[in-house]
Amino acid sequence: MTDSSDKKYPVPTIRRLPSYLRVIKALDFEGREFVSATDIANELGIDSIKVRKDLAYTEATGKPRVGYRITELMHGIRSIIGWDRNSEAILVGAGCLGSALLGFPGFSKRGLNFVAAFDADREKYGTYVHECEIKPIEELEKFITERLIEIAVLTVPSFAAQQVTDRLVNAGIKGIWNFSPVRLKVPPSVVVQSENLMSGLAVFMVRMARGAE
Amino acid sequence: MTDSSDKKYPVPTIRRLPSYLRVIKALDFEGREFVSATDIANELGIDSIKVRKDLAYTEATGKPRVGYRITELMHGIRSIIGWDRNSEAILVGAGCLGSALLGFPGFSKRGLNFVAAFDADREKYGTYVHECEIKPIEELEKFITERLIEIAVLTVPSFAAQQVTDRLVNAGIKGIWNFSPVRLKVPPSVVVQSENLMSGLAVFMVRMARGAE
Repeated sequence: MTDSSDKKYPVPTIRRLPSYLRVIKALDFEGREFVSATDIANELGIDSIKVRKDLAYTEATGKPRVGYRITELMHGIRSIIGWDRNSEAILVGAGCLGSALLGFPGFSKRGLNFVAAFDADREKYGTYVHECEIKPIEELEKFITERLIEIAVLTVPSFAAQQVTDRLVNAGIKGIWNFSPVRLKVPPSVVVQSENLMSGLAVFMVRMARGAE
Repeated sequence: MTDSSDKKYPVPTIRRLPSYLRVIKALDFEGREFVSATDIANELGIDSIKVRKDLAYTEATGKPRVGYRITELMHGIRSIIGWDRNSEAILVGAGCLGSALLGFPGFSKRGLNFVAAFDADREKYGTYVHECEIKPIEELEKFITERLIEIAVLTVPSFAAQQVTDRLVNAGIKGIWNFSPVRLKVPPSVVVQSENLMSGLAVFMVRMARGAE
């Protein structure tokens, strides 16, 4: 990553913030006004010192014996992880996994709004998956440039991943959330975030073979 | 993790092994007999020293200027990550994400075979998703104990996750691949591997805001 930003948040911190947010939202829902790092740590079964360090990045100020004001902390976490903004996104590859992602209720709440999905299967054109229209892959570039879309979620088969990526990048996409197992080649200005289920499966299987944690 | 195993593989190594396997399987398919750490490193855009260290865990022996015999290396990687074994698994929660996972072609090739799925929705009972029968959640314990199932993939809504987990553990499940955002409480003997899409989304959004890599 570059140093182009003023603030740098450690990736492990960023990965933990959504679970903190989930815990304090539940407390907020119950009518609580304050939360301590220890409350969050206990709920998630992690070290409270780690939680305290992570929360320091939010710039919310904790008071001794009272903790953090929940509304302030929610705002701080959301603004770090960008869930206070709204981004339009497209999805390319409306197969099993793609369709599941289109229906995931958590994304729009977190600022990621699917405005269209694209697929190469003619039979899908004009159909809707979870209120999102499936459009012909031929219309990909036109849609991206006209709507100034910057984010694409990639759920195409491996063999098509790089070719579709090239088209996305040429059309102006700035970030790709990649669910294919392929390592995508993109210019340095484009962000690729890859989720690899097979890595997770491998770790799971090794831990199972080992027998316990 | 415990020290109960003879060998310990670093988690980052385990996470990388599936992508190495993908690269060398493609070379094998092309008729190649040998592969070097540099070949793999170049294909994946990572450091060749890292690849060499990772491959050392496979106990495959590389020859200078020739590299590793591909068949030997594939065997070595598969045996580390358990993809040379076959495990029966159940899936609980046949919603959007669960159905997508049932249809994922990669799992059975990697030794994870879904033999049944369970759901609380009566309308789904007896239907099939990707050749896997959806059974009533009431039959969960009976099925696990009769078939001696040890692995469960959890794709239920958050509110049901802990309760279903307790039932799985009581019935004898030894490992849970958890796709709910909940931190599950289990006895130390049970392995929980959690995939958290929201963590991935958070990292993606922060990197997008930062603008480049």
